[in-house]
Amino acid sequence: MPGISKKGANMPESPIRKLVPYAEKAVKDGKKVYYLNIGQPDIKTPEVALEAIKNNDLSVLEYSHSAGFESLRNGMAEYYGKLNIQLTNEDIIVTTGGSEALLFAFGSMMDNGDEVIIPEPFYANYNGFAIASGVEVIPVVASIDNGFALPPIEDFEKLITPKTKAILICNPGNPTGYMYSKEELMKLRDIVLKHDLFLIADEVYREFAYDGAQHTSVLQLDGLENNAIVIDSVSKRYSMCGARIGAIVSKNKEVMATAMKFAQARLSPPTYAQIASEAALKTPQSYFDEVNDEYIQRRDAMVDGLNSIPGVKCPKPKGAFYAMAEFPVDDADQFAQWLLESYAYKGETVMMAPASGFYAKPELGKKQARLAYVLNLDAIKASVEIIRHALEVYPGKQ
Amino acid sequence: MPGISKKGANMPESPIRKLVPYAEKAVKDGKKVYYLNIGQPDIKTPEVALEAIKNNDLSVLEYSHSAGFESLRNGMAEYYGKLNIQLTNEDIIVTTGGSEALLFAFGSMMDNGDEVIIPEPFYANYNGFAIASGVEVIPVVASIDNGFALPPIEDFEKLITPKTKAILICNPGNPTGYMYSKEELMKLRDIVLKHDLFLIADEVYREFAYDGAQHTSVLQLDGLENNAIVIDSVSKRYSMCGARIGAIVSKNKEVMATAMKFAQARLSPPTYAQIASEAALKTPQSYFDEVNDEYIQRRDAMVDGLNSIPGVKCPKPKGAFYAMAEFPVDDADQFAQWLLESYAYKGETVMMAPASGFYAKPELGKKQARLAYVLNLDAIKASVEIIRHALEVYPGKQ
Repeated sequence: MPGISKKGANMPESPIRKLVPYAEKAVKDGKKVYYLNIGQPDIKTPEVALEAIKNNDLSVLEYSHSAGFESLRNGMAEYYGKLNIQLTNEDIIVTTGGSEALLFAFGSMMDNGDEVIIPEPFYANYNGFAIASGVEVIPVVASIDNGFALPPIEDFEKLITPKTKAILICNPGNPTGYMYSKEELMKLRDIVLKHDLFLIADEVYREFAYDGAQHTSVLQLDGLENNAIVIDSVSKRYSMCGARIGAIVSKNKEVMATAMKFAQARLSPPTYAQIASEAALKTPQSYFDEVNDEYIQRRDAMVDGLNSIPGVKCPKPKGAFYAMAEFPVDDADQFAQWLLESYAYKGETVMMAPASGFYAKPELGKKQARLAYVLNLDAIKASVEIIRHALEVYPGKQ
Repeated sequence: MPGISKKGANMPESPIRKLVPYAEKAVKDGKKVYYLNIGQPDIKTPEVALEAIKNNDLSVLEYSHSAGFESLRNGMAEYYGKLNIQLTNEDIIVTTGGSEALLFAFGSMMDNGDEVIIPEPFYANYNGFAIASGVEVIPVVASIDNGFALPPIEDFEKLITPKTKAILICNPGNPTGYMYSKEELMKLRDIVLKHDLFLIADEVYREFAYDGAQHTSVLQLDGLENNAIVIDSVSKRYSMCGARIGAIVSKNKEVMATAMKFAQARLSPPTYAQIASEAALKTPQSYFDEVNDEYIQRRDAMVDGLNSIPGVKCPKPKGAFYAMAEFPVDDADQFAQWLLESYAYKGETVMMAPASGFYAKPELGKKQARLAYVLNLDAIKASVEIIRHALEVYPGKQ
């Protein structure tokens, strides 16, 4: 019987899913489970997008242009224009989710064995895309003690080798919620220019910026036109995770021409989802205002609640809808499993994503877990109380 | 300025698209162009699929299961059951088109530098997926003289090295339309079992079988359960190319568990397209009967027409909706370009896909082109007459 590849063996299991069997068992046992493990918001998709699909009049569901509908790319260029990022539709390739955009970026700029430096903890699936692309992830450690701010630039400098091709950041961050300041981004600009590297920025949570924090895109940094690559997606922006529409965005013509060859190989991004995404560009500002107000309430309830539990530390993020918390336990993987398997408070429990999977060095996340505040305020409050009571009786407490 | 990867530089341009600028120019110049270059059928998508989308009542466009809706996988298992292929939903992972299924297959079974043997001419994008995956394509030559039948099995045998991990076929074939007989498939079965290889079969054109030809799936071959991997897609079956829904199908549990990790990394296939694909499973048989009747008429008009032109050779395919023709010209790439750039018959011309891009050794296809009979009968007939008259005056005629 033929065997699988080393690559396949090395692909990580998703840390946000590995507890799923325990959650299923918990539900089967009659427990109510609050799912804080995955970034699937309960927020309604904008009506304009839903209606565009219901009212579509396609009779042949055809391929689109490999770069996506020109009308969608024009609409996206206009969207970026409002953010003071001047682009044309040629600077944008529509992809099947941000995932595919990252695969195209890795493929276009990195060969087997090349290296990408990523501040950790980082979005766990970066590991998967790196392995699929034959690329090595070189982590640089960010600390919970300063809310996962950019690590000292000297720490990046030390890790740069002839194989280093890019630095990858997620801003605002999944799993940390940290939003890099313009000053931090300028430091990254200087180092990538100095070493002739790409700066890939996953900015899919751009709109989720709180407390007056201003998001800066790497596309707004002077002098970085040929180095900056943005990974984008409609998934979170419009609560359209199931659309699977993203984009790779850059002014580097050579990168875009190369990414386009990857795009042509897979023919086109999904057509219905492009219709929905184009319509979603007309979502009124009031939608985003309401959504952000809601997230701020949820964040405050969750983060303030967690910090009120003895021994729990949870920096308050200024973006996205995740928080990383440190728990007074021996092992957060076991704690998260125990919550599902062996615990309930008033018949309810919580599923969270142990942080070990978000670190290249899993031991760094041993006491941490990521919690997504994507549930309604009552569910968030109930979840905090469950964790509070759970920690009072958890056998592995430290 | 940082440079692109070797991988990116090596990614081929799509042979079905490289003439697009000339076609656009031809249209701008007032010519009518018949597009025989791309497998985008004009056939209507089944009503059941279109209606399911219009009537959907989603309010949050959520991620689906990474393997696709369980209900869709169950429906697909039932579909395979009718073809005498017994599967459960665990043998199927829904992918974003057949393209992604092939990427998952390559990634799950092959490491950087591993080899896959493919009869040529082959679907040009196999090159792109191989390069993206770090896999080497080892071609084995099929001949137009016997209609692109399976090359002698000794030719495969000679190419097998310790790096060979799989043989990949497309059945019925794009670009050849050739349908492998059960006897040919048994020879492939024996050689993959002998050398402990995978047999990957791209069977997306399964339903397009003419003149009483019976399609045999590699999933129907005894003893091949752990070696057979099927790449499938709804694109052609239901004229839903823009859905981007495919599947990787295998009874090899280790391969499926590995492919599932690739699937989890990209979260989920597109949700709307899954709704359409699930509904499409209820497409009545009469739809397929009508479509096949139509394709047979088109094929006969095209292939018989081409063969009636002096010096043109075009084997009549028993499947899919492509034919490969050999033209009495010095260079089919130039001929195809000349048709768009410098020729018109009654104000009309034809776009075809030069065959060089379908060969790993491009010179083998130097006089050949692929023509997709995806246009209506009048357009097909007009196209043949354009080619007939063009060859009377083409300067590079031989």
